[in-house]
Formats: sequence, structure tokens, C-alpha cells
Amino acid sequence: MALSPISYDAGGRSFTGFLADGSEGLRVPGVLVIHEGGGLTDHAKGRAARLAELGYVAFAMDLFGSEVEPPAPGRPETMAKAQAVVRALREDVAELRARCAAALGVLRAHPHVDPARLAAIGFCFGGAAALELARSGAPLAAVAGFHAGVLPGSAEDDRAIGAKVLLCHGEQDPVVPASQIRDFTARLTEAGVDWQLHLYGGVGHSFTNIEIDAWNLPGFRYDEAADRRSWAALMQLFSEVF
Amino acid sequence: MALSPISYDAGGRSFTGFLADGSEGLRVPGVLVIHEGGGLTDHAKGRAARLAELGYVAFAMDLFGSEVEPPAPGRPETMAKAQAVVRALREDVAELRARCAAALGVLRAHPHVDPARLAAIGFCFGGAAALELARSGAPLAAVAGFHAGVLPGSAEDDRAIGAKVLLCHGEQDPVVPASQIRDFTARLTEAGVDWQLHLYGGVGHSFTNIEIDAWNLPGFRYDEAADRRSWAALMQLFSEVF
Repeated sequence: MALSPISYDAGGRSFTGFLADGSEGLRVPGVLVIHEGGGLTDHAKGRAARLAELGYVAFAMDLFGSEVEPPAPGRPETMAKAQAVVRALREDVAELRARCAAALGVLRAHPHVDPARLAAIGFCFGGAAALELARSGAPLAAVAGFHAGVLPGSAEDDRAIGAKVLLCHGEQDPVVPASQIRDFTARLTEAGVDWQLHLYGGVGHSFTNIEIDAWNLPGFRYDEAADRRSWAALMQLFSEVF
Repeated sequence: MALSPISYDAGGRSFTGFLADGSEGLRVPGVLVIHEGGGLTDHAKGRAARLAELGYVAFAMDLFGSEVEPPAPGRPETMAKAQAVVRALREDVAELRARCAAALGVLRAHPHVDPARLAAIGFCFGGAAALELARSGAPLAAVAGFHAGVLPGSAEDDRAIGAKVLLCHGEQDPVVPASQIRDFTARLTEAGVDWQLHLYGGVGHSFTNIEIDAWNLPGFRYDEAADRRSWAALMQLFSEVF
């Protein structure tokens, strides 16, 4: 499925995401895809393309901005730059939410997207971003985080989540320990949110991302079974809400 | 799908299970279905029928024996009797395993069952029983526990599990706290078992069993979303192994 670059602005900065349109001209659900801390690579673009093959319009948004080079293995300075952007966005949740909202706006405005049927999915830091979008009260039917981080937030933030939440997580994730996810889900219960947590035994961080293995990071590794299972869980959730 | 009663013996005691054959004469996977602590009712029989509609041969086994009357709401003495049997089986794991093995033998011997493709699923105490069957080294490709209990067992027991394990659990299960399930999954990781745990927010015990609401037990309640999601997870697991 072809991906089309779309440039858009947020807060005076320029971003370039990639849109895949599987609508065949109908009005279909729109899915925002938010990349890992490692940047907008073929991983998130590939998920957008896969969603389009299933009939959705999917937009692989850009969290970092057009001036940030995508990190590349063998060039650690590129990853250091991306990590600095992630740190800054963790500290400035309003900016993070604004970037996500701008990208959701691009998706909603697409002529083949039914604005009443929207979802956001995210990977790693992109999962935290998707959850922040939901916490901002964005009209999402579903939000899914794969090996997602979670930002602190308030109980009021949690109560603003109208989306059904799916979290797919590696039991041995060294970046986002399962205990941190459990603390978050306890908060979601308090807030009355419909949530599910799928934990995969013996699985680490970035389990959906085949690119991650080239980085040789301890505890980060692709896991074919967990990738397949978590994607199936997403499809099941979409079958509920769309 | 029609259910046929099958009587069989284990340890000198007589049992009656119900078999549903969806094979259409082919050799297909066989699924053992193990009922809740509340006995072999329409709940487990219904799951066997549903599996047969999907092309499996399914056997809703009898954990309690033909002389134990199925518990009925409004007749608390029948539940008390069933609970006494459950307590006895919890204390006598060898007997529990023997009853499951006998039922698995019935399933394996069925002419339409491929004995190389077997699974066991169980609900509540039946989930603990299914896990004990796996811990006994039974040749199961998959085992699933829905709002399942877990018996103590040894590390050696855990290492005997060759099946892929799926646990679907209510976050607010008052009978089997999620923390108990987490302790078990940590052991499964130690043992190198392929496992997944799906936790459902705000969901209690017996969430798959519509009959449970008639008992008015605190923290026991049917949950349509969790029932649907957990069944979909089972179907996904079966699509992996069969």
C-alpha cells in the first residue's frame, strides 16, 4: 500500500507524516500511528500500510519534526538527538499533546476518514503519546500502546479517556517495567476506563519492531509471537469499536 | 451442535462428560473443556458445542463424578457439596490429574481426534485443573485458563508444561487475585514456558459464565466484553498451534 508524505505544522514547527489510504473512496475509520522513540522509520510506516491494506486510512505521524534526522544504527549521534527530543517532550506534555492533536487533525480532515471513528496506536514512547492524546479528551474510540511508556498525568487526565484502552507489554521490558504498567491500569480502573493489558512472558521492549535488533540494546528485541499476538489483539479491539 | 454423553471411569469412580463432534468425519484437533467449581453445567457444555461449530471435537469433561449433583441456584446444599469436592481435589492433586488424564484419554481415543493436536481449556477451578494436566506433562499444544485458579506445584511441575499457556483474568477477581496469577507467570518464565496473561480492567470472577449472576456472589459476575475478548484470544492461540 502506497504511503504519501504529508507535511503539517504544529506550534510553528514543521512535521512530515505518511498517510496510507485503504478506503477505496469510502468513509472509513482513521488510525493515527505514533512511532517509537527511535523515530519515524519503516516500522511505523509499515503499520500504517498494513492498516490501509485492511481498509483503514492510517497516518504515521511525525513526533520529532522535519529537522530531526531519523536515527540510524551505526550513527549513535542520531539516536542521541532523538532521545533528547523524547526527553524534552516528556517534560512538556502540552507540547506532546499538541503535536499529536495536530496530526490527528490531519487524519480527521482526510476526505475518506469518518471523523466519528478514530483510533490511535503507538509504540514505545509513541504509546505514551497515544495515551496522552486520549488523556487530552481527543475523540478516540480506541487507543493501543505496544511496549508503551506512561507519563505521570493526573486523575483528571485519566477520567478524560473515552477510548477503550489496549496495552500489550513484554513481561521483561527493562524500559517500562510491568509494575509501572500495573500502576497505570489501577489508575484507569479508578477512572472507569475500559482497559485490557496483555502481558507476554519472557518478552522485552520493542517486541513489534524488527529493526530494533540492529541496535543491540539489552532487553530490546523483536519477538515474532508477541508481535503477532498483539496485532491480533488490536484487530479484535477494532472489530469491537469500528 | 449436538452433545453426546460419554461415561468413563477414573480411579474406580464413574464420570459422565459431553462430547461435541464438529469434525465432519475428518481428523481434527481435540479440545478438553473443564468446568468451573460450580459443576458441569450448560456453561462448559456450551463451550464444547461452540468449539464443535468451529470444527473441533470438544469434550466437556466431568471433574466431580456421576454421583455429585450439579449445583443449582436456590439449593445452597448442592453448591456446598461441589465445594467440598473442589477442596478435596485441591488437596489431592494426583487424583485431580488422574481425572483429567482419564477424560483426555476419552478425547484422544475418539476416531475423529488427531492425537497430535490437543488442547485443554478450563474455567475457574477447571482452569487450575487444565494447568495441572499440562504440569503432568500431558501432550497438549495449548492450555487456557479463564478466571483460573492455580495450585501450588513445584518448579519441576512447571517445567513439564509443553503447552503454550493463555491466562485470561479479571483484574478484580476476588477469588484468584491478579497478584497470585502474576506469581504463577513469574514461575512460568523461570520454567521457559510460552505464556500470555490477558488482564481485563474492572472485571471480576467467572466473567465468561452468564449463569453466575443467578448466584449473587460478591465479585462474581458475567462480563460480556471480557467474555468476547478472552474467547477471541483463545481462537488466536488455536490458530497458532492448530
